[in-house]
Amino acid sequence: AGDSAAGETKATACAACHGTDGKGTSPIYPNLAGQSATYLESALKAYRAGERGGGMSAIMSPQAQALSDEDIADIAAYYASLTP
Amino acid sequence: AGDSAAGETKATACAACHGTDGKGTSPIYPNLAGQSATYLESALKAYRAGERGGGMSAIMSPQAQALSDEDIADIAAYYASLTP
Repeated sequence: AGDSAAGETKATACAACHGTDGKGTSPIYPNLAGQSATYLESALKAYRAGERGGGMSAIMSPQAQALSDEDIADIAAYYASLTP
Repeated sequence: AGDSAAGETKATACAACHGTDGKGTSPIYPNLAGQSATYLESALKAYRAGERGGGMSAIMSPQAQALSDEDIADIAAYYASLTP
């Protein structure tokens, strides 16, 4: 499992769209607060692999490609830890 | 905007994985309760179009391909209306 404290530090780039509290800053962006960490890891890895197209993937794929497996686990743990 | 009452009826197939309360029945499935309806519509349309691969897309794409635009709007409104 990821380290949510490390994830908070790594998630600064995410907050522009997903909010500092994990609530999307526009309706087009999903809320991430309280989401399943396992699901979030799966989604980020699909974006990173270029498998997940459509939606906002033109933004998410490059973001995810900058992340290691550990980064992804930490960021997922961070958002999962937030109150929806 | 979709009709959340109609969406509840249309979402019976979704509940096996996403829960009758919009909470995923396994950590691999995202929680949908309280998610942005706009985002949910975007995600379902990307699955329907075959753009969104990876993750559980082998299940989600066929499910979404059975849905009209109205169905998607209704189902999205339903999950957005639930308490996270």
